Order: sequence, then structure tokens, then C-alpha cells
Amino acid sequence: MAVKTVQDLLIEELRDLYHAEKQLVKALPKMAKASKSAKLRQAFEQHLEETKGQVERLEMVFEKLDSSARAKRCEAMIGLIEEAQEMMDEIKTPEVLDAALIGAAQKVEHYEIASYGTVHALAQSTGQQEAAQLLSQTLEEEKSTDQKLNEIALSEVNKTALKTAA
Amino acid sequence: MAVKTVQDLLIEELRDLYHAEKQLVKALPKMAKASKSAKLRQAFEQHLEETKGQVERLEMVFEKLDSSARAKRCEAMIGLIEEAQEMMDEIKTPEVLDAALIGAAQKVEHYEIASYGTVHALAQSTGQQEAAQLLSQTLEEEKSTDQKLNEIALSEVNKTALKTAA
Repeated sequence: MAVKTVQDLLIEELRDLYHAEKQLVKALPKMAKASKSAKLRQAFEQHLEETKGQVERLEMVFEKLDSSARAKRCEAMIGLIEEAQEMMDEIKTPEVLDAALIGAAQKVEHYEIASYGTVHALAQSTGQQEAAQLLSQTLEEEKSTDQKLNEIALSEVNKTALKTAA
Repeated sequence: MAVKTVQDLLIEELRDLYHAEKQLVKALPKMAKASKSAKLRQAFEQHLEETKGQVERLEMVFEKLDSSARAKRCEAMIGLIEEAQEMMDEIKTPEVLDAALIGAAQKVEHYEIASYGTVHALAQSTGQQEAAQLLSQTLEEEKSTDQKLNEIALSEVNKTALKTAA
């Protein structure tokens, strides 16, 4: 698709996000399964359900914008998930892996915070309030997931990982 | 490098960041050159100088941690820069490209905000205050760059892009 206008850019960014979210739906169950901390596993499982809802919300946004819900290969999310997979393959100390997985998940969340921030601003500047409103809901969910992961790292996981002997 | 402890994880994440920052030093001049808005070009040029300083700051952190400053291929940043490059290749309307470049740069900033947040927390939890202090300085710079890009998007670039006919 040739991007010539702000509207084209908005659609292009939404397609990138649609691909990113769908990849995340596949990656989160693996991250949950690899978590030793019950709190972390639960956070990943809960975010999986939320992410499925975000995929549906994106489909609603495409509808509002009279555009087809198509995914465009998102190289950044592919890289982010690759890094998380590498950690699961290589880190043999479960408590340290938990700390690593939180870091990986926060990178994913921040990717999404930046992306939803962009599409929200573009939808608003083009006066598409309904789409902007939907995107803002997801943006808030991503911020709150990032915050929750931070709390799990500081209150539990980093401390437990530290106590683990090499 | 086998990651067995929190300290190993910290070093591993720093090597990933070291690679990421060095790639960014190569990408930012291209993004500055591609910017139509003088304000945006200036922001990229200023962030290039800041990024060079952040590379040096990472070298100081490696020194404080008695570790060699080695880079580890960062797949996520490679993907992020690839996306920015694609935009520069494909978007022929300069005003719309400016809006796209801001989005791409904010994804990069958020990647770094998440990464520096992680290494800062790991350095603190392992009681390495000097390293934590240096990392926190960069973290604040990345947050403020993200904020500045946001302001340029909302106050100027998105509006100018909107006025551009397809």
C-alpha cells in the first residue's frame, strides 16, 4: 500500500499493530508456561485474554475507518518475541528467567504504548473520534500492564532472582 | 554468555543496549536528513549527540561493573530501524513522512525506556549504585526525547501533514 496521506499512514500503522498483537497472542502462552512465579504467570495469562480483546478492538477500528482488517508483517515485534524466545531457550535458572521475561514483556508493552500513542494521535488529528476512543482504551490497558509488571519485578521477582545462587 | 545470575542478566541486557545505541547512531543522521520540518531535523540531530554520549555512558557502566564493553546483536532495534528505513524508502509525501518518522522514533525511544528501566532496576537490586545512577540519567534523557517528539507531532508535524493533499 502506498502511503500518501495521514489516513494511509494511520491504516498502515494499524496493520502493523494488528500483526504485532496476533504474534503476541501466540507468544504469551509460552511466556506464561515458562514463568516460575505464580504472580507472573497469572499476569501473562490475564494479559493474553486482554490481548485477544485488543485484537477484536483493532478489528472494530478497521471497521470504523472503512478499511479491511489486514496484517502487515511487524519486524520490530518479531525481533522482540525472538529475544524473549532466546531467553526461554538459554536461561536455565528459573528465577533469573522470570526477571528476564519481565524485561522482555516490558519492551513489548512499550512498543505497543508508542504505537497506540501514534495511532491515537493520528485518529484524533483526522477527527475520527470513535476510532480514537477505542485506541485510547487499549493504550491505557498497555500502560497498566507495564505498571503491573514493574510492581511484580520490584516486589517479588528481582528479589527472588537475587537469592538464587549461580 | 550463559546467563545464570541477575548480574549476568544485567550484563547481557547492557550488551543488547550497547548494540542498540550504536545502531541508532548510524540511523539518526538518515532520519534527520529525511525530515522536512526544521524542528524535527533539529530534534534528531540533537538526539544524535545525546545518543553518542549515551554510548560513552554505557562504556562507563561496563567499567563500573568490571565487564568488557561488548555489543550483542539486538534484533528488536534492528527491526525498529528497518521499519524507519522502509518508511523513508516508501513514503513520497515529505510532510506525511515527517509524521511517520516521529512514530518510528517514538517506538525506538520506548524500546530504550523499557530497556534502561530494566537495567536500572537490576543495577539497583544488586546494590550497584554508581551504575544505577548513570543508567537513570540516560533513562531520563530518553523519556524527555519521547516527550519532545510528542510535542513536535501535536504542535506542528501532524497538522502540516494533514494539510497536504494526496
